[in-house]
Amino acid sequence: MTSRRPSLAVVGATGAIGGVMLQILSQHADVWGEVRLIASPRAAGRKLAVRGEETEVLPLDEAVFDGVDVALFLVPEDVSARWGPVAAGRGAVVVDGSAAFRRDDDVPLVVPEVNPHAARLRPRGIIASPNCTTLSLIVAVGALHAEFGLRELIVSSYQAVSGAGREGVAALREQLSLVAGTELGTGPGDVRRAVGDGDTGPFAAPVALNVVPWAGTDAGDGWSSEELAIRDECRKILGLPGLKVSATCVYVPVVATHSMSVHARFENEVAVDRAHEILATAPGVVLFDSPAAGDFPTPSDVVGTDPTWVGRVRQSMDDPCAVEMFICGDNLRKGAALNVAQIAESVAVEFPRD
Amino acid sequence: MTSRRPSLAVVGATGAIGGVMLQILSQHADVWGEVRLIASPRAAGRKLAVRGEETEVLPLDEAVFDGVDVALFLVPEDVSARWGPVAAGRGAVVVDGSAAFRRDDDVPLVVPEVNPHAARLRPRGIIASPNCTTLSLIVAVGALHAEFGLRELIVSSYQAVSGAGREGVAALREQLSLVAGTELGTGPGDVRRAVGDGDTGPFAAPVALNVVPWAGTDAGDGWSSEELAIRDECRKILGLPGLKVSATCVYVPVVATHSMSVHARFENEVAVDRAHEILATAPGVVLFDSPAAGDFPTPSDVVGTDPTWVGRVRQSMDDPCAVEMFICGDNLRKGAALNVAQIAESVAVEFPRD
Repeated sequence: MTSRRPSLAVVGATGAIGGVMLQILSQHADVWGEVRLIASPRAAGRKLAVRGEETEVLPLDEAVFDGVDVALFLVPEDVSARWGPVAAGRGAVVVDGSAAFRRDDDVPLVVPEVNPHAARLRPRGIIASPNCTTLSLIVAVGALHAEFGLRELIVSSYQAVSGAGREGVAALREQLSLVAGTELGTGPGDVRRAVGDGDTGPFAAPVALNVVPWAGTDAGDGWSSEELAIRDECRKILGLPGLKVSATCVYVPVVATHSMSVHARFENEVAVDRAHEILATAPGVVLFDSPAAGDFPTPSDVVGTDPTWVGRVRQSMDDPCAVEMFICGDNLRKGAALNVAQIAESVAVEFPRD
Repeated sequence: MTSRRPSLAVVGATGAIGGVMLQILSQHADVWGEVRLIASPRAAGRKLAVRGEETEVLPLDEAVFDGVDVALFLVPEDVSARWGPVAAGRGAVVVDGSAAFRRDDDVPLVVPEVNPHAARLRPRGIIASPNCTTLSLIVAVGALHAEFGLRELIVSSYQAVSGAGREGVAALREQLSLVAGTELGTGPGDVRRAVGDGDTGPFAAPVALNVVPWAGTDAGDGWSSEELAIRDECRKILGLPGLKVSATCVYVPVVATHSMSVHARFENEVAVDRAHEILATAPGVVLFDSPAAGDFPTPSDVVGTDPTWVGRVRQSMDDPCAVEMFICGDNLRKGAALNVAQIAESVAVEFPRD
């Protein structure tokens, strides 16, 4: 017999995250056998390049999953909820990038650098990948947790508009064109009037020359869904159901790459030198931390790269068990396509090569 | 005898904060008798409008303070350090907006809504006004402290570029002109290359399509001077030398108005309804908190207004003694000129009207 590599399906191949996934697959070319590209019937029939080959996009239906070993879902939550179990029922291991299954007890939520073992136990044949805000911080925090024992996270985000999809990017681009070259931003509501009150795109307020402290939907008691997602997902990934988490999610006028200001309190005292050592060697993390020399991560320097970048690491002045950090991660790469690809590759090694 | 109102000197009348001060003095026109405008000899001789009168700007020297009851200093730290004691020596009560005296034990640091009594005890005849970042949060936090007893503050700032002066605003305006209408912000360093690596103004990185997690100067152990100022000043104003404070200061592409994501932990349990009541009635605070209806403060809606705006108030899910809040305050009004004017007005009532 010839060597057989596992076959892959990419559902949502024509979307924004799907496009990033095709790039990643082309860069990691030796993992997969057949790669089947799938989209809604409306988008099917197009040809997309993957691993140097023009590949026709197939329409999403039950039979398209026959013979597929691993199926990646890069589609809205309702599409995953309907079609993920179908693919799993046809024998594929499903890796889902949406929120459809993240909170289900019988679906593991996996970040390969942090809890790779969790991917093996998947009673429904489905593995979920976290929200992009969780992914922008969990790799760094997970590395420190392994050494010091995490007890509490207090997080404030500086979220990129692409977290709200292509409409978010379009809204920022259009608003920037309206405010650039003006003296706006100095009188109450002047930006809102220039943008148009009903024309703030997916955001509840203008995002150019502004920040918007609301992301996602109303989750009750004053919280947004994005803030609760960070809490729930950090607890699940780290296996710490009692972890204290307080998150505040804020959109900023940045195209891509989420940033996080993090106060992390541990069971044990944190020596900053040791924290630096851990972050400097942790997989998937780049330590960039010499602020007096201008070395700290910013979204515009980090965007388009794979790792989680960490800087501004310092011991809290009033709590030797806590550190402050500033973390940046590209929400379209590690925060979406890359983590799904990494989970899939960790599953690929389970398939026998004979 | 006719009624005599106290006389005022405004040192730094020709600067950006001085301009805001002249507006405020025109709005509060009945407090002061003579108003003397003072600037460096280079800027002296100009005429500026205050309270509807063209007033000639006098050069800064010793004799200019003779007969002045209250002298406001809206000048760089080194000018205050040199000339503040001179004015005090001539009998004026000095209210200084710079950092020159904030940390001195024998100079009170005053926010009239929070610690008005402190202004009375001024052994050197000098009263200091806090940093704009401290001022953007202390009025709201002080109101809650009076009821619940503050124990810890964890703060992440979203600071406006005008916190770095006119150069900061100019840098943002110029960078916005370079990035608007482009597809920048998607590749590593593309914004930095468009802006020019050596041309980021007073910031350590581009601020358009970006956020910059560094404000002020290197204060050692990884901290910036702005971060330590928040800690030192909150402790001094609240009279809590043991208060735990961790701040992370980040510039965002906003012209004016600083925003703060605040985790505040108190001695006592915080009922959110009671916190709402306190903030709704606290002097100098506007509660704007119905996020599902789009009601939360943002800098572009708050800029140009006097109060501290508070929204996103919610009890921490894992600590009944802590609340999260999002606070906005105009760094050029309450954060600078307005607080100095309020301190001066609280001193004005000490002068007898016969």
